[in-house]
Amino acid sequence: MTELETLIDELVAANHILFQQGVVDGFGHVSGRHPTNPDRFLLARSMAPGQVTHADIQEYELDGTKVDPDGPAPYLERFIHGEIFRARPDVMAVVHSHSPSVVPFGVVPSVPLRCICHMSGFIGTSAPVFEIRDTAGPASDMLIRTQELGVALARSLGSNAVVLMRGHGSTVVGANVRQAVFRAVYTEVNAKLQAEALKLGPPIYMTAEEAAASAATNAGQLNRSWNLWREQIQG
Amino acid sequence: MTELETLIDELVAANHILFQQGVVDGFGHVSGRHPTNPDRFLLARSMAPGQVTHADIQEYELDGTKVDPDGPAPYLERFIHGEIFRARPDVMAVVHSHSPSVVPFGVVPSVPLRCICHMSGFIGTSAPVFEIRDTAGPASDMLIRTQELGVALARSLGSNAVVLMRGHGSTVVGANVRQAVFRAVYTEVNAKLQAEALKLGPPIYMTAEEAAASAATNAGQLNRSWNLWREQIQG
Amino acid sequence: MTELETLIDELVAANHILFQQGVVDGFGHVSGRHPTNPDRFLLARSMAPGQVTHADIQEYELDGTKVDPDGPAPYLERFIHGEIFRARPDVMAVVHSHSPSVVPFGVVPSVPLRCICHMSGFIGTSAPVFEIRDTAGPASDMLIRTQELGVALARSLGSNAVVLMRGHGSTVVGANVRQAVFRAVYTEVNAKLQAEALKLGPPIYMTAEEAAASAATNAGQLNRSWNLWREQIQG
Amino acid sequence: MTELETLIDELVAANHILFQQGVVDGFGHVSGRHPTNPDRFLLARSMAPGQVTHADIQEYELDGTKVDPDGPAPYLERFIHGEIFRARPDVMAVVHSHSPSVVPFGVVPSVPLRCICHMSGFIGTSAPVFEIRDTAGPASDMLIRTQELGVALARSLGSNAVVLMRGHGSTVVGANVRQAVFRAVYTEVNAKLQAEALKLGPPIYMTAEEAAASAATNAGQLNRSWNLWREQIQG
Repeated sequence: MTELETLIDELVAANHILFQQGVVDGFGHVSGRHPTNPDRFLLARSMAPGQVTHADIQEYELDGTKVDPDGPAPYLERFIHGEIFRARPDVMAVVHSHSPSVVPFGVVPSVPLRCICHMSGFIGTSAPVFEIRDTAGPASDMLIRTQELGVALARSLGSNAVVLMRGHGSTVVGANVRQAVFRAVYTEVNAKLQAEALKLGPPIYMTAEEAAASAATNAGQLNRSWNLWREQIQG
Repeated sequence: MTELETLIDELVAANHILFQQGVVDGFGHVSGRHPTNPDRFLLARSMAPGQVTHADIQEYELDGTKVDPDGPAPYLERFIHGEIFRARPDVMAVVHSHSPSVVPFGVVPSVPLRCICHMSGFIGTSAPVFEIRDTAGPASDMLIRTQELGVALARSLGSNAVVLMRGHGSTVVGANVRQAVFRAVYTEVNAKLQAEALKLGPPIYMTAEEAAASAATNAGQLNRSWNLWREQIQG
Repeated sequence: MTELETLIDELVAANHILFQQGVVDGFGHVSGRHPTNPDRFLLARSMAPGQVTHADIQEYELDGTKVDPDGPAPYLERFIHGEIFRARPDVMAVVHSHSPSVVPFGVVPSVPLRCICHMSGFIGTSAPVFEIRDTAGPASDMLIRTQELGVALARSLGSNAVVLMRGHGSTVVGANVRQAVFRAVYTEVNAKLQAEALKLGPPIYMTAEEAAASAATNAGQLNRSWNLWREQIQG
Repeated sequence: MTELETLIDELVAANHILFQQGVVDGFGHVSGRHPTNPDRFLLARSMAPGQVTHADIQEYELDGTKVDPDGPAPYLERFIHGEIFRARPDVMAVVHSHSPSVVPFGVVPSVPLRCICHMSGFIGTSAPVFEIRDTAGPASDMLIRTQELGVALARSLGSNAVVLMRGHGSTVVGANVRQAVFRAVYTEVNAKLQAEALKLGPPIYMTAEEAAASAATNAGQLNRSWNLWREQIQG
């Protein structure tokens, strides 16, 4: 396989894994930066992730334009991907989801999502929350449906791995598709564990140093999960 | 397929989808207004939704009378459907369920079900709660088993998309079967997310304008979920 | 099939349904009173409910003695069944389980299990809790492993449909196997719903009259669930 | 089968059971002491437990050295197993996991994991919590990646059956593979039940005597679960 074929293959698998792991339902999407043209990215046409096949992946410019103008209808929120790829040269893959344990942390300002265990060290000390009202005003449909909103979201993400989106979901980035998928799954896991811990009493969170060290270790363990998850989607 | 055949086909699928998605268990039902005779509706005979086949769908007058007097035993609560179809000419499909995350919001008066994220904008600012004691007194079996109770429930629903029923469940309406199913699934999702958010701290809810804008956008996205869910019930 | 063959067939199905519905795991058991000899009952040999076959069901005297002294090893807790059948002539089937949402209500004296919705009207105003320390002292292994403990548990059950067992689980009775299974499943459902409601705020419980009326209605609806559940275990 | 073949067979099954029961995901591991050489143990190579086959099990010295220096890459945390086997001659099997209901108890110092029901009597009065900062300082990657850390963890475990690990997971030991698996599953169950009970109100915990008596009884019931779980992983 060429690098591009490998990327498409991994994106198809990533769509099915994220569905199988409960990170996405009929909504949510995952993209990868073009392996030889960093100003383009690949993303499925507008459809449920769990049904994506190779033929459904198409190429986009960073501004969200389809490279093939006759291609099928794109996701309304492709600007999430394009503007993050533009702002973050280190990012090679992006997952956007409404993963269920994460949404509550996006709507409760008093409780930030923080790193509760070593599997989610990539969260660092806490995840920022994007408030769409600051850019789109008080009557938006909550979607990142313009370049302007994509730029604002990318700014909110900053140099983090995860940004929560109030009343909507979250976006997670990685140095490759496998890492973005790993982080999306363990962002959901962390949110669930942190919520349960908070119901028991005040938790001890990871220090910034523990989080960084754990994240570095886990960067070398991605294939352990990836191989398992690929087997699981093959049923 | 004729319009009527298409409706029956969608109702059978809707029964299985609602079961597969955990909105109904052995109880609950989904109806559609007759496509050419707005004074009639279609609903399964009294049975578990997950076992409904084409042959189990029968036709009813709005007052709950079976069109075929020799047809099989109807649901005790067919009056939910008839009286909502009568009161709401815009409604073409109705789902009644005991979906598990919604029931608690129906029994705790201090906490209304409110729109917590964009997928459930159709909830608007909050969902009304129907108190059967106001009509049936303090010793009913909780069921909407008469026209009078159906009328009272429809009045409580008003112009909303969702009405909770104290100690019982909820009823959700839509402009077509796909929308009613979508709303039933995401009413359950919203209830689960809102309950989790409330355990963390005071949430930021969607504004009425955000809810309305999100609902309008999602009305154009119904098939993304529907296609996925149909595939899932084919197993 | 003879009445006895029908009972055995239903008990085998009940074992698998209770496992499939998450009421029992490797532990728990379900019995039926002998259809022609009310002083005997039928119960599986000591094994996981999900693996029970027709050949595993054996006959017991009410005092817990195996009718066939050479039969395989019985459950340590067969006295639950025998002493309830002795004390309650109206009871024809008994389910004992550690169903997960019910156990917490058995260990928190400040919060009784109460009827939160119409599906569990059989709970009545609240379920009693059996404290084994009152009979077995402070160092028992928590099991109903003697006739004396079975008698004490039956006394705690009284005329109720459900009795919780502190630090252990619960026992549910019915007028037939289908009703005992229905009640075991919806005791678990009620506990889950009540716990979630309590986390939101003070709930409105069903009145005793509402509970009784709902229970009477549901007694006529048992087959709707039973038919579904039988299909699911054939899965 | 030789004793060694039997152990390898049980370890492969244990890996799949722990995955199927939700105790491990892509991470976590289970070991057994060598049946004839108590100074060695068997453990899979570094991989997801759900994918382990007979060929993936290899032999280690208690200090974590692979007996076959050319064998595949070991788990970074094999020192958990080796140092516990060294410190506890009674222990013949060890499970390390991040089982989801247990992690919160490891990060909330105000709420110890305690025995809430008879299935988890092996927990005793409460489970100790290992704080890695005491040995590795404030910037570790949280892993038991040295003999020194293994020794510290074994000291924290003491004579208990379970030790929690702050921000990480837990480790459970047994007199054989079946018991270690049983305890790993019911540690997760106990954590879930205790957390739910605490949300209702102050629970009555098991006395030390009740816990000990229950643990002794359950030691004789291991095969009931094991037989079920083996059937379940055969799908």
